[in-house]
Formats: sequence, C-alpha cells, structure tokens
Amino acid sequence: MSAVLKDLTADAVSQVKIDPYPASEKIYVQGSRPDIRVPMRKITLSDTPAHFGAEKNPPLYVYDTSGPYTDPNVAVDLKKGLSWVRVNWILERNDTEELEGPTSAYGHQRLHDPATQHLRFEHIRKPRRAKAGMNVTQMHYARKGIITPEMEFIAIRENQKMDAMRELWKDQHPGESFGASIPDVITPEFVCSEVARGRAIIPANINHPELEPMIIGRNFLVKINGNLGNSAVTSSIEEEVEKMLWGIRWGGDTIMDLSTGKNIHETREWILRNAPVPIGTVPIYQALEKVNGKAEELTWEIFRDTLIEQAEQGVDYFTIHAGVRLKYVPLTAKRMTGIVSRGGSIMAKWCLAHHTESFLYTHFEEICEIMKAYDVSFSLGDGLRPGSIYDANDAAQFGELETLGELTQIAWKHDVQTMIEGPGHVPLHMIKVNMEKQLKECGEAPFYTLGPLTTDIAPGYDHITSAIGAANIGWYGCAMLCYVTPKEHLGLPNKQDVREGIVTYKIAAHAADLAKGHPGAQARDNAMSKARFEFRWEDQFNIGLDPEKAREFHDETLPKESAKIAHFCSMCGPHFCSMKISQDVRDYAAEKGLNEEEALAKGMDEKSKQFLEEGADIYHKV
Amino acid sequence: MSAVLKDLTADAVSQVKIDPYPASEKIYVQGSRPDIRVPMRKITLSDTPAHFGAEKNPPLYVYDTSGPYTDPNVAVDLKKGLSWVRVNWILERNDTEELEGPTSAYGHQRLHDPATQHLRFEHIRKPRRAKAGMNVTQMHYARKGIITPEMEFIAIRENQKMDAMRELWKDQHPGESFGASIPDVITPEFVCSEVARGRAIIPANINHPELEPMIIGRNFLVKINGNLGNSAVTSSIEEEVEKMLWGIRWGGDTIMDLSTGKNIHETREWILRNAPVPIGTVPIYQALEKVNGKAEELTWEIFRDTLIEQAEQGVDYFTIHAGVRLKYVPLTAKRMTGIVSRGGSIMAKWCLAHHTESFLYTHFEEICEIMKAYDVSFSLGDGLRPGSIYDANDAAQFGELETLGELTQIAWKHDVQTMIEGPGHVPLHMIKVNMEKQLKECGEAPFYTLGPLTTDIAPGYDHITSAIGAANIGWYGCAMLCYVTPKEHLGLPNKQDVREGIVTYKIAAHAADLAKGHPGAQARDNAMSKARFEFRWEDQFNIGLDPEKAREFHDETLPKESAKIAHFCSMCGPHFCSMKISQDVRDYAAEKGLNEEEALAKGMDEKSKQFLEEGADIYHKV
Repeated sequence: MSAVLKDLTADAVSQVKIDPYPASEKIYVQGSRPDIRVPMRKITLSDTPAHFGAEKNPPLYVYDTSGPYTDPNVAVDLKKGLSWVRVNWILERNDTEELEGPTSAYGHQRLHDPATQHLRFEHIRKPRRAKAGMNVTQMHYARKGIITPEMEFIAIRENQKMDAMRELWKDQHPGESFGASIPDVITPEFVCSEVARGRAIIPANINHPELEPMIIGRNFLVKINGNLGNSAVTSSIEEEVEKMLWGIRWGGDTIMDLSTGKNIHETREWILRNAPVPIGTVPIYQALEKVNGKAEELTWEIFRDTLIEQAEQGVDYFTIHAGVRLKYVPLTAKRMTGIVSRGGSIMAKWCLAHHTESFLYTHFEEICEIMKAYDVSFSLGDGLRPGSIYDANDAAQFGELETLGELTQIAWKHDVQTMIEGPGHVPLHMIKVNMEKQLKECGEAPFYTLGPLTTDIAPGYDHITSAIGAANIGWYGCAMLCYVTPKEHLGLPNKQDVREGIVTYKIAAHAADLAKGHPGAQARDNAMSKARFEFRWEDQFNIGLDPEKAREFHDETLPKESAKIAHFCSMCGPHFCSMKISQDVRDYAAEKGLNEEEALAKGMDEKSKQFLEEGADIYHKV
Repeated sequence: MSAVLKDLTADAVSQVKIDPYPASEKIYVQGSRPDIRVPMRKITLSDTPAHFGAEKNPPLYVYDTSGPYTDPNVAVDLKKGLSWVRVNWILERNDTEELEGPTSAYGHQRLHDPATQHLRFEHIRKPRRAKAGMNVTQMHYARKGIITPEMEFIAIRENQKMDAMRELWKDQHPGESFGASIPDVITPEFVCSEVARGRAIIPANINHPELEPMIIGRNFLVKINGNLGNSAVTSSIEEEVEKMLWGIRWGGDTIMDLSTGKNIHETREWILRNAPVPIGTVPIYQALEKVNGKAEELTWEIFRDTLIEQAEQGVDYFTIHAGVRLKYVPLTAKRMTGIVSRGGSIMAKWCLAHHTESFLYTHFEEICEIMKAYDVSFSLGDGLRPGSIYDANDAAQFGELETLGELTQIAWKHDVQTMIEGPGHVPLHMIKVNMEKQLKECGEAPFYTLGPLTTDIAPGYDHITSAIGAANIGWYGCAMLCYVTPKEHLGLPNKQDVREGIVTYKIAAHAADLAKGHPGAQARDNAMSKARFEFRWEDQFNIGLDPEKAREFHDETLPKESAKIAHFCSMCGPHFCSMKISQDVRDYAAEKGLNEEEALAKGMDEKSKQFLEEGADIYHKV
C-alpha cells in the first residue's frame, strides 16, 4: 500500500490505497438492484504469440477481498472509514432501531474516556439493534424464505463470472467431495437454503455496514482467515490496521482481531470501520483484560457486557469457548501439552477456581439472544484442541466437539448462525476422522480449523506444516481455514508473515477446491498453465497468487526485460527447451488432422523428414 | 559453513566445515566391525524446570546427512575429497578390478584436456569396475543372501537409536500405512530382504567409496532429494559444490546434479568426491551437450559412453527416460503443457526426428549390463509426467508408467536396483491413484516423485503447493520425495532456496512417516512438544528442523536472553499463559492420585479452594 501507516490520527493516512495487482482492474457485477455491486478482479491477459496460434486470451476473473482500497475511483480515508454498502439493505428490513449510544457499560465508558480520546476513531456511528422481539440474523431470514441482498451478493460473488470463463475450465477434472453438494451455478436461492439449514453462514453484523458479504460453508469456495492483534508485549493500532489491509490485499476472506494488549476497544473500532471483510474476535480475551488478567474474577455480567460492546461495534463473529465444560478439564491432565487454546485455558481456570460449570455453557441461551439482536455468528471455539501430535483426537477434544454439536442445536433453535472451530495439531492420517465427526456431531455446520499442523518439529515453518493439513481438511469438507504464519509458536507475525501466511492458505484452500471439483476452480490453473506453455511470462506473474514475488524470483536470474518475452527460462537456458517440443508435436497433429492412432501409424515418417529438413531446431527465435 | 567458497582451487577452501547445529554432537554407532561407523546427531536437551517436575531429559538422536563436515575431529579438504569409508567393503568382496583409467572416450579425453586442467579435481582416483562376468549390485548380493556392510550400516542408521528413546515414543499413534510392512526394528536381514525383492534400493556406486549408505523404500523412513546443477545461463562449480554442502546440511538424503551448462564432467567430479550422500544424474543432459544441444544427433554410442563416463566417476543413480516410447509421443499433442520433462522432451524429439523407437528402450538390456558393472541404480524417469493440473493422470503419463513397470522387470532380471520417478502436477484427489498404479505396475519398486504440485497458481510458492502433494504421496507409500524450491518455474535456486526447499521437504517426509506410523517417528515431535510445554525455549529451537530460523523469529519480538527462560511468549505476553493452566491441572491430579472420574467428582472442590487461597495466579515467576 501507499505507505506504512505512521499515525492513524495524522492527515497522512487520508486516501489510503492498497497497491493494485498488476494488469488487474477492479470491476463490479451488478445484481438485481443498483446497490448490489459485487467486486471482482479482472486480470487482462496478453495474446498468444503467433507461433503458438495467435489466440486472444480472454480476461481472468478472480475473487477479490481487497475492498474499495483497490478501486481507483474511490478515495478511502481511514479516519472516516469505508462507505456503508449494506446500509440500505439493513434499513429497509425495518426490523432494527438506532440506539442513542452504546448500551454496554464499557462501550459507554470508553466513548467518553478523555484518556483515550487521542486515539479514538473520530466518526463513531450510533449502534443499531434488533427491535424488541425481532431476530435479524441471515439464518432467520433464510428460514422464512427471504432472499436478502446479502445472499444475492454472495451468489454473484461465488460464481466469479465462471460462466464467462467456461471455455477455460469446461474439461476440469471431476472432484471427490466426500458428500458435499456443490451446484454448477450458485443461485441466491441456493445460498438461502444453505444458510437456512445451517450448512453455511454469512457473518454480517448489522453494525458492520461496510462489509462486502461473503459466505462460509462446505458447498462454497473454501475460505481463509488471517489473525492479527496486539499483545501486552508488542504492537500498536497503526500496525494492526495495516496488517488488516495487508491481509485483505493478499486474499484474507475474514480477519480475526485477537488483541490482548492495550486499547483493545479502540483498535477494534479502527479495524471494523475500515474492513470490507468480516471481523471475528474472541470476546473472552477482552473480558479477561477487564479483570486484569485474573480469570477467576470473570463473571457472566462482565462477559455479557463485552459481547454487547463488541456486537454494537460491529464484530461479525465471536469465538466462544462454551464447550469447555467442567467435566472435560481433568481429561487434559495426562496430555503432552495440556490446554493450548487461550480461551480454553481461561475457561478451564475459571471452572477450576469456582468448581462449577462454565458460565458460557450455563448462559448459552442468553448469549444466543444477544447474537440474534445484532446478527453476530457463533464460532464455537475448540478450547480443548490438541496442541501437539501426541494429544491429537483425544477424549478431551472429542468430548468438547460433542458439546459443540449440542450447542449448535441450541443456537439453531434461535436462528443464530454457527460455525465450529477445530484443531490444531493432528497427524495426516488422523485428520479425516475430525472432519467426519464434526459433520456428524454438528449437523454439517461449517467447520473452521487452525491448520491442522501435521508435525510439531518445524518451528519457523508452521505455515507449511499446517498448510498440508489445511489442504487435506479443506478437501474433506472444512469450510474455512485459519492461517498459521511462519511465526507460530515463536512470536507475533509481522506484515511479511501475514503475507506468507495468507498466500500459503490461499494455496491450501485452492488445492482443496480443485480436489472437491468446485465448478470453475480449475480456470485459474488452466490460464496459468497455458501462459506457461506459451512463455507468456508477464501473464504467469499476473495470474499467480503473488505476482510481485514471482517476478522478483524470475528477475533474480534473468533481470532483463527481454527475458520476459524469451522462450526459455534460467532452468534450461536458451539452447534447449522442454516445453517447445510439445508445440512441435501439437502443430503437426493439428495441421494433418490426424488422430493419435494415425499420427502414430503414418504421421511420424513425414514429421521426421520435415524436422531434419528444418534443421531440427526446436528453439524458435522470437 | 565457514565461508562462501570463492574458488575451489584456492587454498582457502581447505578444511571446510559445515556449521554444526546448536547443542548437537556428531556420534557414531559402531556395527559388527570397526569400519561400520554410523553417524547420527545427538541433541542434548536441558532439564525440566523444577516446577514442571525437574526431570532429566535424555538426548534426542536424529538422522544425520551432513557427513564428516560436522565432525570436529575430521578435517575435510575439498581439494582432496572425503575419506573412503566404503573402500574395504568394496575391495574385500573381490569382485571388482581397478582400471588403468577411464574407459569412456569422453572421460579419457577430459582427463587429459589442458583447457580444463585449471578447474579439474586434483586427485582423480582410478575407476573400478566389476570383473568380467561379475555383478556387483547390492541387489545381487541380497538375492544371494549376502548381508553387506552397507546393509548393516543402513539398518543401524534407520533405527536412529530409537530403542534408547523408546520411552519418548512408546505411546505414539498407530499409523495408516496402506499396506506397507514396516517392522518395529530394522535389522540387516530386513534390509537385505527388501533389497532382494526390489522393494528398496541402496544407491551406492563402487566408485563412490565416500558414500555413507542409505536406503530408499516404502518400509523405511521417507527420504528427500535436493536438485542442483548449473545451466547455460548461470552458476559455477564453486556454487554447485556449495549448494551440495548446504543441501546435506539441511537434511538432503540424496542430491541430483542436473547441470546442463559448462564443465559438467568437472563439476560432477568435485561434487562426488566431496559428497557423503548418493548423487544422481540425468545422463542424457550431458549427452545432449556433447551433440551441441541437437537431440536428433544423439546416438546410442554417445549415450553409452556417457553412462560409462559417469559410472566411473561414481554416480549412484541415473535417471533414464526409457519409458518415453514413440507410441506415447502423439498422446501429448492435446495436452495443456505438452512434455515438461527435459529428458522426456529430448527423447521425444529424437523419436520424432528418426521416427523410430527410443534407443533407451531398445538398448535397455545393454544399459543394465553397464549398471550392474558399477552398481548404478536406475531411476526410471517419467518423461511424460504432467506439467499442469490439466494434464494430470492422462494416457501419456499412465502409458509410460506401464512401460516403466515392464522395464523394472528387465532391470530386476539383471539384479539392477530400480526406482521409478513420478509426477509432477496432480490435484490432491488424484494423487492416490498414482501411488496405487505405480505399486501395481512396478511390483512395489520404490516410487520417487517430484512433489506433486497440487495447484498451478502459485509461482514463488511451489515448495508449498508441492509439499502438500508430497506429504500425501509419502503417506500413501512414496519412498523418496524430490524437493521443489520456491524458484520452481521461475529460475535456478540459490542457497537460500535450497535451504527452504530441503526443510520444506523434511516436513513433508516427516508428516508422511508420522501418518504411516513409522516406529519412533513421533519421538522428535514428542520431545518438541514437551519442551514447548515446559517453556524450554533453547530446546525448542534445537529440536526443530531449522534451529537458526526458529531462534531468529523468536528473537524478532523478544530478543533478550532472559526471554529464553521466560514462561511466556510474545503471543500472550507475561500476564496470562494458556499452557500454564494445564500444569496446574496436572499437578493437582498427580498429587492426589485421582483418576479423571474422581478428580471430577470430588477433586475440584479442593482444587478450587487451593486456587483461590494461592491468589489464583497461574503465572509462576521464574
């Protein structure tokens, strides 16, 4: 993006842009009404060179999470926040009301705290809430058969103009989806029915009108989440906002703000007001800060106030570790690494200290009441996830998963959207049973996993140990993959770690989409491979997930511009190129109209002569 | 290592050391005779801190590919090469003879070429060859029931002192090995029987006495290969030798020298004389250079001379694309990316130009005769491997695989050790059938795959797109994984790319070992996780695959030495740590001798009181 944010309150941050991808243009596909404008990225491709057939290559459309920041026609001022693309949709449903101000005690207090005024977002909007007795969740609408603008937006978005690119992927490999039901074309009706049955969620708080809606479910594209957040040790608001922008630039579908340090409330406001993607949080983290880190001093009342505080800011999904029941805590005693979930350990400590059932569990229905008044989705946390290969799939983990299934049914009774969090550290051969058990216990509610990491032995490379697990579980049916950065187990990720983590997880998610046979998933691979075969170097860079890195790596050995139109690369050099022979084979077959048998039977003789006559040089000069 | 090699012929490169890993010591386990000394790396671990139980943590032993370079008692002079650890074993078999000099025309010519004298390795040994009528392959010995020192060496090496560490892994997860037959302890007899039936190979040319023997087979630890080699565009001998050293330092089990540029013969000599791991090559690359890059001018005679030239230098395995038969070439015409294997395209071009069957196929038995005179193993090349997701598992690829199965039987008739190369680009759900078909067609000969890459869309990250595929195919039964570096499709890897590629593939191989349930595979994970739980930071760095990177990442946020004994990390900060609560749970259960039920029923009350009395502070100061 244009500059590292030095100080969000300074004028310098006005009109922030995210550097657009090369050869890319932001387009909007309009829906049934003018205010349904679905963003996509259009990548313009160059023509096929003459000796490969001189074709026009139609543009490639790809999913775009970067929001208005990459739209040259929109000036974004971080101090004012993004425009409210959903505001009419919310208002016209006429089931919410604007409040006088924050109704949480803490939200009210922070709004008027002079000590934090200098770092407060300036344009705090009055929050909205469901009118008394109303339920404003997308699930509630879906179950009434109402197709919301959000659902239509998502249908267009998920299709990614695949129809316009059908020529490119019509022969794609049939997948193995293990029982998913992915239609050829995503309709608003399909989105609606998936949300109604709880098989997908649309995290979209009514207080996050800046949001470009997206969906999480096994019958849609596999999504990825990027975590950020400060800690007591490090980071500032500026850094966290910048990480959010960086995360969506590289393709994060949702962002979780896991801040545990200073000014959590204010950091979140800045992030939300500038985030075009759903924002998730773990409210117990902030609640813990409110009791100065003493878990045993947590109360339902403090937690409840925190939920309302965050719901009124616009958080789209809450991780809530309501499955950490008292009875499961002793099951962790024999583990190698005990409880590694921060939220899980907070609740375990609380349960031990009070020797009573978790207040998250006992107050679960009251939590549902709050969720449905703002349409906050549940991400039911796996507080007892394994933190080591040794602890994978143990009684504590699976016991909790069963409870999460029970809680899902309660949430659904309230029409509250729900997804389920999953492990963690799991060896490759024990991943599938996690997915199967989750589908069974939780009625196909979307699964959202951290990796899983397939080995413990590679700190510094846990984006990779976990991408292996993530691709597999995505293939098996996981709906969203929570990224792991190279810093996992070692420190807080910086900007470059966020990029590395996001791109790695885009790979895992896409590998899963291909394996599931998601319609059109292969379009981008095919476009890339065709460009590769035709030595269209610029197109190869531009089609890839990280054009900058690809170009930089190419240029390390062949920096000259001429090398980007050369029909060779630094691997083989100019004298012999593997790829070129194939074009000779193909040209010949096409020219003669031979099928393969004939080519074999009689064509080769002639080809043989022709080759020798031409000097048998397969390297054609450009 | 001590310095970047500036000039191999300068004195400065004498006594090269590879930087040892921290807290690590080279040990040797002696076999039945004094000259069987099997290297391992012993990692010394610190004690468990008092409040976690004050245990001694026994040392961890890990597989060591780094050769004498990490032995402080050995001075390696690259100009003289490594000592000949296998020489007695070879001599005492009394089935080989020393030759007067190279018997290949090219080898003879290069030895006396004044133009290359300045860069020639100084101490070229006279080559050995089987006596007339003798067969000197490990497979030949194995089939006669002879257990060679190489086999005993390997048995000790594969066991990795797992018995001494049994306490650490005795509870490891049972794996899913899809029909592999991995014994609890590897005996020399087992090595012998696996080699005899062709299910494993020991690449060990009699002219590579510097080699520390290793084995490749589905019932052994999954191995990885690192590629290096210059091209017409870039690199020098010094760089390639350095890449080899770098590759084995990070854990490469074998190295392939794929040079296609200048001074291929001399580069290879330098590498072989200094390589403690098997070296593989693709002889057709050099043969092509001998005819100035004109594939159609290749002849059996030139190729044959190249095989002998390289066999007499000591190359341990040859990639030979004898499965690229004329009849398969037209099958590639409709592909997205045609033929992407360099060797495959060379042979395809030759077949087209001459309209006749490949000389590699028609002369295959003569090739076997050469292989068995030096014990060079086949790596039967997959010249028609798919170069894109689109082309995965097509008729050309699988047709060639069937031919490779046929050739395997011929090689085995000659007692020539054989492994089979595999793809390439394959989506996740189409990988398993590759493994199954390979096992079936090739009689369980070891499979050796490149990745496979599970998507085409991430140039710059193909170590990751491929590690996903590699971990899976390793789990399914692949014996060796050929690394892919971040530079794949973009340029030649540099040193850092080699490190990134090797470590990534160590991860994939280890994830596969864990999934297969390889005995003892989980020891290192458990040691890591225990260290993690006990906040033994130094041990965490040291146990990992890349201690330097782990330490560097940790220190980015918490650089002070005191942070390495702190019971927190930068993720949560010092005020609340997830891991610590678990120790509280555990301490309590242990102290009371409660089982989980009891703990639940009556223990919690007491625990609850104790907690509150102690101030309920789970963060214990160090």
